[in-house]
Order: sequence, then structure tokens, then C-alpha cells
Amino acid sequence: MSEFSELVLSVRDYECDLQGVVNNAVYQNYLEHARHEYLKSHHIDFAALAKSGINLVVIRAELDYKGSLTSGDSFIVRTRFVRKSRLKFLFIQEIYRQGEEKILLSAAITGTAVNDRGKPFIPKELDHLLK
Amino acid sequence: MSEFSELVLSVRDYECDLQGVVNNAVYQNYLEHARHEYLKSHHIDFAALAKSGINLVVIRAELDYKGSLTSGDSFIVRTRFVRKSRLKFLFIQEIYRQGEEKILLSAAITGTAVNDRGKPFIPKELDHLLK
Amino acid sequence: MSEFSELVLSVRDYECDLQGVVNNAVYQNYLEHARHEYLKSHHIDFAALAKSGINLVVIRAELDYKGSLTSGDSFIVRTRFVRKSRLKFLFIQEIYRQGEEKILLSAAITGTAVNDRGKPFIPKELDHLLK
Amino acid sequence: MSEFSELVLSVRDYECDLQGVVNNAVYQNYLEHARHEYLKSHHIDFAALAKSGINLVVIRAELDYKGSLTSGDSFIVRTRFVRKSRLKFLFIQEIYRQGEEKILLSAAITGTAVNDRGKPFIPKELDHLLK
Repeated sequence: MSEFSELVLSVRDYECDLQGVVNNAVYQNYLEHARHEYLKSHHIDFAALAKSGINLVVIRAELDYKGSLTSGDSFIVRTRFVRKSRLKFLFIQEIYRQGEEKILLSAAITGTAVNDRGKPFIPKELDHLLK
Repeated sequence: MSEFSELVLSVRDYECDLQGVVNNAVYQNYLEHARHEYLKSHHIDFAALAKSGINLVVIRAELDYKGSLTSGDSFIVRTRFVRKSRLKFLFIQEIYRQGEEKILLSAAITGTAVNDRGKPFIPKELDHLLK
Repeated sequence: MSEFSELVLSVRDYECDLQGVVNNAVYQNYLEHARHEYLKSHHIDFAALAKSGINLVVIRAELDYKGSLTSGDSFIVRTRFVRKSRLKFLFIQEIYRQGEEKILLSAAITGTAVNDRGKPFIPKELDHLLK
Repeated sequence: MSEFSELVLSVRDYECDLQGVVNNAVYQNYLEHARHEYLKSHHIDFAALAKSGINLVVIRAELDYKGSLTSGDSFIVRTRFVRKSRLKFLFIQEIYRQGEEKILLSAAITGTAVNDRGKPFIPKELDHLLK
């Protein structure tokens, strides 16, 4: 139900921009990596799926930026995976600085899978996970 | 009113990921670059503002992915800048493949400015532009 | 003989790091993009080759950093393509700030091509170009 | 003498390009991150130095690419730090896939520090470390 996974990462200095904080786009990198790690922990391999002609794709991303990460920070990406509709799934993700409770970023990432003819579907491995 | 600016860019191969298309996070790079170019064309310099202690920050990003850019594509980022509320502005942005009318990505990026004591405000250059 | 191509690019603010200048790794992005544009202008398509099982690969990169690009800069990537040995080619590349003569970065990038069985070779399109 | 530090990292899928392997430029990201972690473990903070007007800069990078990392790989960045000359230091770095002995990338990164008037020097913290 309220199951979630947590990935601990550290800011790398090259991810900070001229404002001295992690660049906005980099959070999408963090979130994607956390989603793929989540899937991998459930034996679903994004890269292997892509090679086999099944592409997991993001349809919509909503990101609320509430605070900034900066050089030296360690942080947690919390990921939950739920069904959104027959053909869509949703990753609900949050980023916290390690040891703090304040949410720095909250995101809702809607996705689907597309087969090699471009048709959206939910592969049975994902379907199983969404139950 | 419905004024907008257009920036023409080309996909760089390193921006494509193992699915062979531009990675989701890279669109945020494109959008940021188009916003900064838009501001620069109105004599507002993101980097100079940051140096002077005024940081333009993204509060919320909504991105709808409707199609993919890939190696060899040229594309247009269309940017409009409107007031959202007293302390917030909004960039409405769309990405098209050059020569096509289909929107590949539409985005709404909400931002504000923060002074050197962390207080949100709208600098007068932006205020002028939003009128 | 001393033929070269020039690509004009502009720094994007997200390419700058917390030192306020373009991050070291980003120059490799610029150089790669310039190499691929050079090849494309000679009807050699990096992505199409990769799809067909022929991978152009970098074996060695030497980069001398002599100055920095920063926000607002436009710059030129100058690219020359020469044979290094039977199975190796060399891109000699330089980066200048537009309108200046001082070299900001000079690079020598050694590469080869690898077929789908991992064997190095020079595809005939490249061989032709190297003559 | 032959002291070195090791940093264990994992490939993130967005770091792979359309050839399906980690993009060449990304290795410079890995190496930079490993250098900064090395320095941090010796109480030298790249970002704090930059803020105080002392910039550690790369003068020359030599990278020999001998193999590729790809999706799913964990790898080790091994870093050694030695004096090169009065005003230059050298990071000798190697990347291995975890559990393998084959070097995938070997690099020699020459750097110096620059004070707020642009003059190269070796800060005493680094000088101490180089003895």
C-alpha cells in the first residue's frame, strides 16, 4: 500500500550551476535514476526492456521545487509506484536532505510503456508490480 | 499579449540516451536555455542577476511529453512570459520539430526571484516586462 | 590539406558550474558535437552508423585548457580530421571565444571504428575523407 | 607513496548515449567527482575554496579509453594525487568495472590553483597533502 523505496545519493559538484546549487534539470536525472533502481530492485531492467523493443516512457512530469541541494549534501530519493489508469502508471517521488524532514522536491511522473509498433501498453512485469 | 519568442536549436548526439532519443531531463536544459535567451533579449541577464545576489528560481515545472526528438533533429522552443500572481511569473513553453506543427513537449514553468536574504520578489525589470 | 570546419555555438547557463565557468567535462560535449557535425557535413552520420552496428569510438583524448568560457560567450569550435595510423584517425580541435584569437582549449582526439564483432577498422566513407 | 583512494559508483542510465554505453564526456564527470571526494576526505573542499576566491583548475586532461561502462555496471574510480612541478599537481586516475582487473579508463589530470587575481599557486592545504 504505502510501500516505498529509498535511494541515498550525494550531490556531485558538476551538478551545481552558477547559482551554486543543483541545477533544476539535474533533479530529473536523480528521479529517473531512482525510478530505474526501484524497477531493478523488482527485476525490471529499463535498458534490457529498451533493447527488446519495449520503451518505458514519461508522458508527464510535475515537479515542485521547495528547496535546494548544494555541494556536500547527501539526500534521499523516496519513490512510490502506483497505477494511474489502465495504460498509465505513476511514480510519486520526493527528495529530502539526509537527516532532515523538509521535502526539497516533490514530483509526480506519469508514464506508460510503448511496444515496438509504438502502441502503449503495460508489460505484465509492471502490471504484476502495480497490483 | 500573445507575444512569444522562438529559439531554434539542434539535437546534439550526446543528449540522446540508450533509447536513442533525447533524454527527458535534457528538455529542461532546452527550456532553461530558451528562458534565459528570452530574458537576455529583453536585457535581463540571469548570470549577472545571480552575481548581484538576485536568484531567479523555478518553483514548479509541468512538462507534457507528446513526442520525441532524436539525433539529427532541429527544433524550435517557443517561449511566452506571463504574470501568474503578485510574486510569481510563468513561462509557457512549447517544443516543435522544425517544419512540423505537432507539439512534442509543452511546459509551464512557474518561477519567482529571491533576494540575498531569501525573500521572494519580482525585480522591476521583470515587472516591467510582465506588464 | 589544412582544411578545417568551424562550428559556432553559445554557452548555455546550465553548462556553467559553481565556479561560474563552463565545466571541464562540457568541453568534451562541445568537441563531440563539433566532430559529429563535421562528419555529417561529409555525409557520415554517427547515429546511423551506430544503428547499423558500426561504432565510432574515442580511444584517447588530450585536452589543454588555456582559458574559460562563461555565461554569455559565443565561441567557435575548429575541427580538422587527419589520419593517425592504419586503424586510427585524429581530430585536432580548438575552441576560441568569438572575435578573439586566443585559443581557450586545444584538443587531440584519437578514434577508430569498431564493427559489430568488436573489430577495429576504418569504414570506407572515413577512409575516403582521410585521403 | 603509492597511496590511493577508491570511490565506488554505479552507472546511471541517463549517462549512457545512443551507442548504449556511458558517453565519453561523462567519464570526466566521474573523475572530477572522485577528485573532489578525494580532496574532501583530506578536508579540502572544492566548493568552499571557490567561494573564498581560490579556484582549483584543470590545465590538461589525458584520457585513455580502453573499454566501456554500460547500464547496470558498478565501477571503481581509483585516484592518486602527486606533485608535478612547483605550481602544478597531478591526479592519476583509473576506472575499473567492479570485480574486474582490466582498466577501462586511465587518466592523468594536471591542475593548479588560481587566486582571486588569477595568479597560479599551490594552497598550503594542497602543498601539505603533496608532501
